[in-house]
Amino acid sequence: MFSDRFDQLVQALRILPSVGPKSAQRMALHLIMKNREGAIGLAHALTEATNYIHECSICHSLTEDEVCNICLSAERDEQLLCVVESPADVMASGSFRGKYHVLGGHLSPLDGIGPDEIGIPHLVHRLSDGKVQEVILATNATVEGQATAHYLVEATKHLPVQMTRIAQGVPQGGELEYVDSHTLSQAVHNRMRMK
Amino acid sequence: MFSDRFDQLVQALRILPSVGPKSAQRMALHLIMKNREGAIGLAHALTEATNYIHECSICHSLTEDEVCNICLSAERDEQLLCVVESPADVMASGSFRGKYHVLGGHLSPLDGIGPDEIGIPHLVHRLSDGKVQEVILATNATVEGQATAHYLVEATKHLPVQMTRIAQGVPQGGELEYVDSHTLSQAVHNRMRMK
Repeated sequence: MFSDRFDQLVQALRILPSVGPKSAQRMALHLIMKNREGAIGLAHALTEATNYIHECSICHSLTEDEVCNICLSAERDEQLLCVVESPADVMASGSFRGKYHVLGGHLSPLDGIGPDEIGIPHLVHRLSDGKVQEVILATNATVEGQATAHYLVEATKHLPVQMTRIAQGVPQGGELEYVDSHTLSQAVHNRMRMK
Repeated sequence: MFSDRFDQLVQALRILPSVGPKSAQRMALHLIMKNREGAIGLAHALTEATNYIHECSICHSLTEDEVCNICLSAERDEQLLCVVESPADVMASGSFRGKYHVLGGHLSPLDGIGPDEIGIPHLVHRLSDGKVQEVILATNATVEGQATAHYLVEATKHLPVQMTRIAQGVPQGGELEYVDSHTLSQAVHNRMRMK
């Protein structure tokens, strides 16, 4: 509208998730009118991040080095491996003390995403040296996440590794009145003995 | 979390309006995992925009040149000047055929924004050559926008220029049931004869 470069900035901002044409315009105006220093900083951070951040060669999480800090850490339990869908899930599970494996997605045959696309052969290979004793399947509790977990159990049948799935149930602070019926029946089914 | 550069990118994204820590993290992950090309394009667009876009020396809207296209245009009516608060308002009023003047804000004494900060002396000077016959005050219909409009009427009392204010009333498509009472009473007060 004001100039070609302004329109190009609005277009470029639209690649951000959940940013539509109106938000992009508002962001562009905010940057140009009120925070040019921030805009220059953002350009720099984007360039640096795209130049230096890549996948860890072992777990496929994100790192600036060949191998990420979690994989390198000697304090983490090498016998415990948590399999997640995305690097965001690594961030979410802060208190876990084992190592990780990031699939980078879930099985979705309709979208052409099969075992090879999410590196399942690579994971099976990683497990085949016998170091890992237990794999915690922490894929999402969605249909695709469940299917991916089941597939992984099948794919590792020949290995002497224990496979577990994170519990499904009522979330912390959850009021039963607002929990959906499927979660509730899972929570009853997976009930734990207290006495 | 993954690396310093990742954290720096999350921080840099937080300067965008209405982007909190969670959104910034999601945006950073999306860019790094799914759209690096877009991220590089965004960095380029930001650099270009901050380097080349600045205020028009006449109307204070945004341009890449000394004077913006609207000010240069020979097809627009030089006798009609629309005063708005922000360049975003210039974008919003597409069908107007006169010229513009962007204040860059509104009077707000508590925030230390007086007439000088929004360039009112500059606007009065612009009007003093007698070319402009009518000034349409299109500041926002907020308390500050109204106060700014009233101040402008006072500040141009000595000039032979007509000052008008955009109409307040029921918006196009508005159902009376959902219009607030102040707007409704303004709409009745400013009623127009049909026969």
